[in-house]
Amino acid sequence: MAGIGRMNIGQGFDAHRFAPDGSGRELWVAGLKWDGQGEGIEGDSDGDVAAHALIDALLSAARLGDIGTLFGVGSDSAGAGQHGLPMLEHTVAHLRAHGVEPSSASVVVIGNRPKIGKRRAEAEAALSRAVGCPVSVTATTTDRMGFTGSGEGIAAIANALVGFRPR
Amino acid sequence: MAGIGRMNIGQGFDAHRFAPDGSGRELWVAGLKWDGQGEGIEGDSDGDVAAHALIDALLSAARLGDIGTLFGVGSDSAGAGQHGLPMLEHTVAHLRAHGVEPSSASVVVIGNRPKIGKRRAEAEAALSRAVGCPVSVTATTTDRMGFTGSGEGIAAIANALVGFRPR
Amino acid sequence: MAGIGRMNIGQGFDAHRFAPDGSGRELWVAGLKWDGQGEGIEGDSDGDVAAHALIDALLSAARLGDIGTLFGVGSDSAGAGQHGLPMLEHTVAHLRAHGVEPSSASVVVIGNRPKIGKRRAEAEAALSRAVGCPVSVTATTTDRMGFTGSGEGIAAIANALVGFRPR
Repeated sequence: MAGIGRMNIGQGFDAHRFAPDGSGRELWVAGLKWDGQGEGIEGDSDGDVAAHALIDALLSAARLGDIGTLFGVGSDSAGAGQHGLPMLEHTVAHLRAHGVEPSSASVVVIGNRPKIGKRRAEAEAALSRAVGCPVSVTATTTDRMGFTGSGEGIAAIANALVGFRPR
Repeated sequence: MAGIGRMNIGQGFDAHRFAPDGSGRELWVAGLKWDGQGEGIEGDSDGDVAAHALIDALLSAARLGDIGTLFGVGSDSAGAGQHGLPMLEHTVAHLRAHGVEPSSASVVVIGNRPKIGKRRAEAEAALSRAVGCPVSVTATTTDRMGFTGSGEGIAAIANALVGFRPR
Repeated sequence: MAGIGRMNIGQGFDAHRFAPDGSGRELWVAGLKWDGQGEGIEGDSDGDVAAHALIDALLSAARLGDIGTLFGVGSDSAGAGQHGLPMLEHTVAHLRAHGVEPSSASVVVIGNRPKIGKRRAEAEAALSRAVGCPVSVTATTTDRMGFTGSGEGIAAIANALVGFRPR
């Protein structure tokens, strides 16, 4: 934390719909590709709700807008077709260009699948490498209730702390 | 941050129902009035979920109860008929009277409308002025899922950091 | 905070279904037993969503996995039959064994019941004692919307800050 002055907090949230059965869409969550865990997530990018919630938590802690500001919205956006890790790396480069350094971050994935637990260490390592600070991943279900419990979609809640380099 | 000792974290959440079509109710979110974006939000106050979630995040970081403790509940409460910004200002005055200083805060608005993006800077400026520290606003939808996706209602998740003045 | 170096942030979430009418199950939320407020919560443990969300926020701030890692999953897990406070105490002992000290934490309970407000001070005292740092509790409803509004279930969102002892 040497050289870092004040710390700011940020909150992020994202939710997306799973693609219909037979879509053949790859499932990407928390920066990883999940094989054999059903259809992927709809979205212009890969729909990685964990990465997107972390991006919003980081941008909001830095007071630099949100994922729509940075990547645009829709099928011709800069995020279109992109995976979560390169989007996170781009976000962090943007923060650093503004004198902001991620300090720690955390994300909860809410949904029936994928089963995060067995690959948590791998997901945390990938996200931490992309963000350049410790990033934690937890996962839970909503006990068959709501759109995350019915299997219709998946959501993520994230928070982040960032520091500001003295100018 | 000079003169501030330990930092505490707080979490806030709020959700409200949109008023029925034809109610003529003004739509207030994140401290701003949104014209031409449909009916307002039900509630004893203006139903500004972003302001209310921030108030709960600040009060909870300060260990000073929640919005019901401070403003009461129901149509004869101190919050009845009030807008989000004066409620936030009252909250922060209450914190300061207890030696607590807001340090940073952040809120995610979850719903189909209003479209926050175009007036984000204005919303952040208004909320930051009311709270007396940097406040960030992001916004997202739930992809037509759940009560925020159907247009039935709107929700907000907030977090905050506060400092305690040494006594 | 003397002797504590860097601070990490964590996010937690949990949701559970209320037991069916006539189950006779005790209702435990935020470390307290609530009499006369309807049926309890389903789950292998007592289903205390506030305690569980706090456990995930603390473990994730500490980068020590989640509640499933620490207590296992299912009716033969270490958490089975356990109440929230002893589970929190076990979590904090685990953190301390890894050189991590809880600094502050906060949880929002989302649901129609129990009515937290009247016993907030008692709940905050019990949770703060278990965690060994200030823990705040707020509560809100979702205005009859979604699974928390219909009375089908209850949810909680928590965050936490922890410090790391220099080694």
